[in-house]
Amino acid sequence: MDAAMKVWNDVQRIRSEAPLVHNITNYVVMNTTANALLAIGASPVMAHAIEEVEEMVGLARSLVLNIGTLSAPWVEAMRKAGRRAKERGIPVVLDPVGAGATRFRTETAHTLLVQVQPTIVRGNGSEIRALFYAEGATKGVDSRHGAEDALDAARSLAERHDCVVSVSGKVDIVVSGSSTLRVANGHPLMPRVTGLGCTATALTGACAAVNPSPLEAAAHAMAIMGVTGEIAAGRSGGPGSLQMHFLDTLHLLREEDLLRMVNMEEG
Amino acid sequence: MDAAMKVWNDVQRIRSEAPLVHNITNYVVMNTTANALLAIGASPVMAHAIEEVEEMVGLARSLVLNIGTLSAPWVEAMRKAGRRAKERGIPVVLDPVGAGATRFRTETAHTLLVQVQPTIVRGNGSEIRALFYAEGATKGVDSRHGAEDALDAARSLAERHDCVVSVSGKVDIVVSGSSTLRVANGHPLMPRVTGLGCTATALTGACAAVNPSPLEAAAHAMAIMGVTGEIAAGRSGGPGSLQMHFLDTLHLLREEDLLRMVNMEEG
Amino acid sequence: MDAAMKVWNDVQRIRSEAPLVHNITNYVVMNTTANALLAIGASPVMAHAIEEVEEMVGLARSLVLNIGTLSAPWVEAMRKAGRRAKERGIPVVLDPVGAGATRFRTETAHTLLVQVQPTIVRGNGSEIRALFYAEGATKGVDSRHGAEDALDAARSLAERHDCVVSVSGKVDIVVSGSSTLRVANGHPLMPRVTGLGCTATALTGACAAVNPSPLEAAAHAMAIMGVTGEIAAGRSGGPGSLQMHFLDTLHLLREEDLLRMVNMEEG
Repeated sequence: MDAAMKVWNDVQRIRSEAPLVHNITNYVVMNTTANALLAIGASPVMAHAIEEVEEMVGLARSLVLNIGTLSAPWVEAMRKAGRRAKERGIPVVLDPVGAGATRFRTETAHTLLVQVQPTIVRGNGSEIRALFYAEGATKGVDSRHGAEDALDAARSLAERHDCVVSVSGKVDIVVSGSSTLRVANGHPLMPRVTGLGCTATALTGACAAVNPSPLEAAAHAMAIMGVTGEIAAGRSGGPGSLQMHFLDTLHLLREEDLLRMVNMEEG
Repeated sequence: MDAAMKVWNDVQRIRSEAPLVHNITNYVVMNTTANALLAIGASPVMAHAIEEVEEMVGLARSLVLNIGTLSAPWVEAMRKAGRRAKERGIPVVLDPVGAGATRFRTETAHTLLVQVQPTIVRGNGSEIRALFYAEGATKGVDSRHGAEDALDAARSLAERHDCVVSVSGKVDIVVSGSSTLRVANGHPLMPRVTGLGCTATALTGACAAVNPSPLEAAAHAMAIMGVTGEIAAGRSGGPGSLQMHFLDTLHLLREEDLLRMVNMEEG
Repeated sequence: MDAAMKVWNDVQRIRSEAPLVHNITNYVVMNTTANALLAIGASPVMAHAIEEVEEMVGLARSLVLNIGTLSAPWVEAMRKAGRRAKERGIPVVLDPVGAGATRFRTETAHTLLVQVQPTIVRGNGSEIRALFYAEGATKGVDSRHGAEDALDAARSLAERHDCVVSVSGKVDIVVSGSSTLRVANGHPLMPRVTGLGCTATALTGACAAVNPSPLEAAAHAMAIMGVTGEIAAGRSGGPGSLQMHFLDTLHLLREEDLLRMVNMEEG
């Protein structure tokens, strides 16, 4: 099947099944990622209390962990929820926001990677490189920024931790142990809206809830992000209106938009 | 007086008196509910620290408790603030977000109901039913979803706890021990915007601050929500623009909009 | 150099240098202030964990402390981050949100003022007066509200704590020990959007990151806020669209807008 058609299949399944996506995420993006999940047709829930995360994840079809404004009790809740999700066999998506910026973030992200064994890790190039270096790697990844430069790091992490790694950049790269997909959608205004990376992570959780292939789910989410962002940016006068049009566009996203615009390839 | 005219009276009083509404609410909606309270003309304050909630509620004309992203310290602050509000005789509105989803939520909501004795409980049908079952009820409420199905549960809770129960749905139902009001306003796009239910709760707090009848305040807030949502949806291309137009419309809401559109009846 | 030209210089430097602004701020405004910082061209980071704030502030070019939804652990993180920022010699901006409303807020704001010695304190008139009274002052500032009425309080605080005090109001007043600047920009719809005061504080942090004069940085931020708000309000149908147009306008703010509209004077 054509790649764009498979992306559309995920959108249709999300709209018809409205999967519950449990998010333990950061304060900055809770509103906008909940809105993005609603706009694509999923059912978001935000819950972080240690007393309820395991029960809540028991109702969910995927779990999204995002350390953007982490603190110790939230990390403990992420660990508990993550382990329960893995026991249940539902996909877990980890966004290591800010890994590399502080030791606390790098170590927390790496500990969650090791202890939860997420299905998909989704971050930008410098976060993925930081996770790779946290493994004790000392060379082999150059220091330029962007998704392409993090390719070796992503492949190494994917193999060692048996997960999919999704790296956002001008061209997004999604790798598993054996496969690589590249998605060349998106718009330069998107990074001027806070939390669109976190939105990509949340939509990855929505796709993973309905698509049994984590590689496809991760790539499809980036394609949906990119196409939606391109259409929305064309209607926007700046980052404020882009956030608004992004949600409107996602809500109304059509098969023909994807067939015409998705730019995804293997290898 | 005509129902719509009484709704308008509340809007006018909120605009002229700008009552301080103290919110202890969830992270997802803090920004949007503060904006909705400002748009209708109230003065929102968000404060949850155990060190200050009693003093803050001492300045307020109503208190809104919302357990959407609850955790133990926040619940303790809700209890303290709620008790102080009751001592002062100002109205307390409780939104049992997610009651029924986890034991922690159901039990917390029920404990707040018993210990704080809120003036108004405002939730959707499944949350109200969950509170009812938490009382030990085992039958009498059928399992279909929606406001109508929660009517028996709402009436039982209203009688037993001497409060008003406001149930949102396609038709909103507001009950006290002896009266029932139905509000048939709103738009199907509204549930695709995160937190509009929480906004209804916040506006219930604003109406309760100026209207001595909790039954009327609760129903008026649902009418204001519904009419505002209908007008705003007519101007919107999706959920992103609906959130924006909702605030603009609420800020500019006119007597004639309410007289023409409010669909409220007793019984 | 002309005042408006100096404001434009700050905007240009922020856009070209993209300074990292570390915010420990409140839940209500995290999203909108991050978006405002991105819109002006800065790089926002929100981080509050005690484990990482000192390391994070070590990467930043300014630190913004905002007590809008304070609690004890956040205040401790503010203190640690603030002291580290001062050691490093980067500017610290303190927004004493709600000082005067509760003892906890007043005392926390005053303690941060004394222990951190912020470079700039930015608040509204009643917050600045509350800080002044917390010093033990009992008279000399009348009880009318607004920036002008807080002038004596601001001057006293600026002298005693060797900081700049920026007071927002119909006319914003920025004072150091020896100088006073007045900025008469802005629009009456702005206070109907939650958190635009906090946005002013965040932009003050961005200006202070590139302008070595805290007096100028504080005044320039208010000019940028006011001009952006005036342009955006002219395109808006209410507070919902004002928030959106504010971000779009800030992103596209032009030299000619500032030259034509900035209304700033000394004395």
